[in-house]
Amino acid sequence: MQKKKIAIVGAGFAGISACKVLCSSKEVEVDLIDRRNYHLFQPLLYQVAMAGLNPSDIAIPIRKLFSKNRNVNIILAEVNSVNVKNCEIQFDEKWNKYDYLILACGAKHFYFGNDHWEQFAPGLKNIEQATEIRRRVLTAFELAEKAMSKDEQKKLLTFAVIGGGPTGVELAGAISEMASKTLVKDYKNADLSEVRVLLIEAGDRILSAFPEKLSKQAENDLKSMGVEVKKNCRASNLDQNGFSINNEWIECKTILWAAGVRPSSLSKSIDSAKDSQERIIVEKDLSLAGHKNVFVLGDMACFQVNKHQSLPGIAPVAIQQGTFLGNQILAEIKGYSRKEFNYWDKGIMATIGRSKAVVSSNNMHISGLMAWLIWVFIHIVYLMRFKNKFFVFLQWLWSYFSFGQGARLIIHKSWQFYDGKKINYK
Amino acid sequence: MQKKKIAIVGAGFAGISACKVLCSSKEVEVDLIDRRNYHLFQPLLYQVAMAGLNPSDIAIPIRKLFSKNRNVNIILAEVNSVNVKNCEIQFDEKWNKYDYLILACGAKHFYFGNDHWEQFAPGLKNIEQATEIRRRVLTAFELAEKAMSKDEQKKLLTFAVIGGGPTGVELAGAISEMASKTLVKDYKNADLSEVRVLLIEAGDRILSAFPEKLSKQAENDLKSMGVEVKKNCRASNLDQNGFSINNEWIECKTILWAAGVRPSSLSKSIDSAKDSQERIIVEKDLSLAGHKNVFVLGDMACFQVNKHQSLPGIAPVAIQQGTFLGNQILAEIKGYSRKEFNYWDKGIMATIGRSKAVVSSNNMHISGLMAWLIWVFIHIVYLMRFKNKFFVFLQWLWSYFSFGQGARLIIHKSWQFYDGKKINYK
Repeated sequence: MQKKKIAIVGAGFAGISACKVLCSSKEVEVDLIDRRNYHLFQPLLYQVAMAGLNPSDIAIPIRKLFSKNRNVNIILAEVNSVNVKNCEIQFDEKWNKYDYLILACGAKHFYFGNDHWEQFAPGLKNIEQATEIRRRVLTAFELAEKAMSKDEQKKLLTFAVIGGGPTGVELAGAISEMASKTLVKDYKNADLSEVRVLLIEAGDRILSAFPEKLSKQAENDLKSMGVEVKKNCRASNLDQNGFSINNEWIECKTILWAAGVRPSSLSKSIDSAKDSQERIIVEKDLSLAGHKNVFVLGDMACFQVNKHQSLPGIAPVAIQQGTFLGNQILAEIKGYSRKEFNYWDKGIMATIGRSKAVVSSNNMHISGLMAWLIWVFIHIVYLMRFKNKFFVFLQWLWSYFSFGQGARLIIHKSWQFYDGKKINYK
Repeated sequence: MQKKKIAIVGAGFAGISACKVLCSSKEVEVDLIDRRNYHLFQPLLYQVAMAGLNPSDIAIPIRKLFSKNRNVNIILAEVNSVNVKNCEIQFDEKWNKYDYLILACGAKHFYFGNDHWEQFAPGLKNIEQATEIRRRVLTAFELAEKAMSKDEQKKLLTFAVIGGGPTGVELAGAISEMASKTLVKDYKNADLSEVRVLLIEAGDRILSAFPEKLSKQAENDLKSMGVEVKKNCRASNLDQNGFSINNEWIECKTILWAAGVRPSSLSKSIDSAKDSQERIIVEKDLSLAGHKNVFVLGDMACFQVNKHQSLPGIAPVAIQQGTFLGNQILAEIKGYSRKEFNYWDKGIMATIGRSKAVVSSNNMHISGLMAWLIWVFIHIVYLMRFKNKFFVFLQWLWSYFSFGQGARLIIHKSWQFYDGKKINYK
């Protein structure tokens, strides 16, 4: 029997999880295609942005994950187009056939139609963006240190995070802690007690996926750390000097985007039903309507639990979908019929700062130190699973508590938007 | 009495060493100016290029080094010009007065008048270059894995290092080891036994600063690791497809530059006697001829030991000069007269690969495992002195022996010279 050719596009949680199941079978050959050479542990990406972790602490070369599996081809390429009728995908200027296609390309940021805002307010989805955010935040402190006027200093020490979801909450909390705990010792002219961190949320509460009680708790925690939480506010008119909310202009040098997300642009080449966030609506077996051999997973997919509810774009969903699908394809090759995907909801969590987090699991609502310990434990376990670097994590925990922030380097070449002038620290 | 204003330009080994002495005195105020926010432990930079270490493992924020010293101002800026007559330096578009000026801006690569070669053959002087080299080397393996022809693959798997000094030897050895030990497990189509590493040296032996016996030993070590050592060869006509040596054209995608160096361009604004490498010739007290309050240290300076010999541009020279000068300035303020700088030559060393190095100290010539252990020990001690991160180093040693190469990520956005097309892995 000829081996089935399975193409997996995207080596995020969903793609890797599917590949980990499929690689064990001799009846399939897998092409795992990603435009990067590493798998990223995205839940800790904000720590890279905040100089607490190195990129390589949370990323692993994809080849290393599957170096022992001769039936997995790792391909560094960008898939440009999908033709589900001909069972072909295009990359490296060639069309390549598949028997099964797994699309797991994840999501990117969405600026509500204002794509030019991206330069003023980078999002946090990949390592380049994380290091860009790190550079902007650290450079703002450096420029504040030598600012010529109080107004200038104030503008440089104002940081705004747009979007009150888990990423926005983590970023706002981390900037506030970095200023008050780590950096405060290092600057002499800049008065870091003047640092202002704003968290802007369009809805009437932050962490809206969590129970109301925990949203409130998180808001109080942020406030106790000095973060100004602005609800029912929409940011607009972003530029290099600030933005407006509700007709008020906020002078601000550093804006971070943690608001809308949209699926990867490859989803545009799929002609199928989509939800309001443009995610592809999938069948109960994760397949594309009308194409039994094409599957969409993770942040790209809208899996409807019932008429009013779909699964959120979080790592546990992606991991479970990947594992389910890998097993389903192997079962189908052996002649078994398909099953429906069932998500086992273990809960959601968000961290706010050192020893502050919120965890919601079934009917358990936990906040404070206990929630934070759960968050740490789960992240250790998952990171270990793929990194096998226990003491990198220990070391991070150490510097996390000692407020060391070791990776505090401004590395890239230029910080582009300082009064329109390009500053080039070559 | 008014405090003396001391400006230090450059936070490399020389600048930091001087500042460490000066910061203890209440009679001086120090401006430590650097265009980067970190001090770099350059001797291990090749390990960042070779994906063995993270940038933050060998770099430390300058502010952190002097956070307790209220008389040290850390200024992130590029000094554009020096006016020794008026005792002024220019940065941030302003002229700033000094009582003493310490110039310690280091060196950059020199392409023998062919500056356009830099794009084809990056040097290794800073973190941006190290990550660029890492990207090029790793991307070459990725592209070889999916190359369409044997010729193409061969070109991609040919790596050339121009310059047989310590950096060139380290790079050539490390690429060869990375291919034969770390990466060989990860690639399936590319035949890594075809990897060719060339080390090109214009002189008649590599490591010419070392005794002849050790040069020969290093050459044999490199050959045993599969590196082709080409002596009496000058590389020319560099482009994105290769270069020529002695009328032979070498097809090669990755060229690294470890040949000539020149002092930082700031030295051009100093009108003073220079040596053949354009280093500023300094007096016995490290001052600039005719300007007793201006000093030049480290790689920028030519300190003549006798008529035929000057001190080399290595870390121990820079460190000893910085410490000497700091003490001398403090002594002068107290009314003592100046002394002559004396270099205590503890020897030189170069590493070739795992458990292979050469050490030359006075009349001791050591090679092999013992030399390598000395190299490791000295680097641990020095790195500890400023990083205080013992277990980062331990962890590195571990992965060094286990051939883990954890930081194997292709992070930057584009690899520019692949058949003239810009490849953008956004």
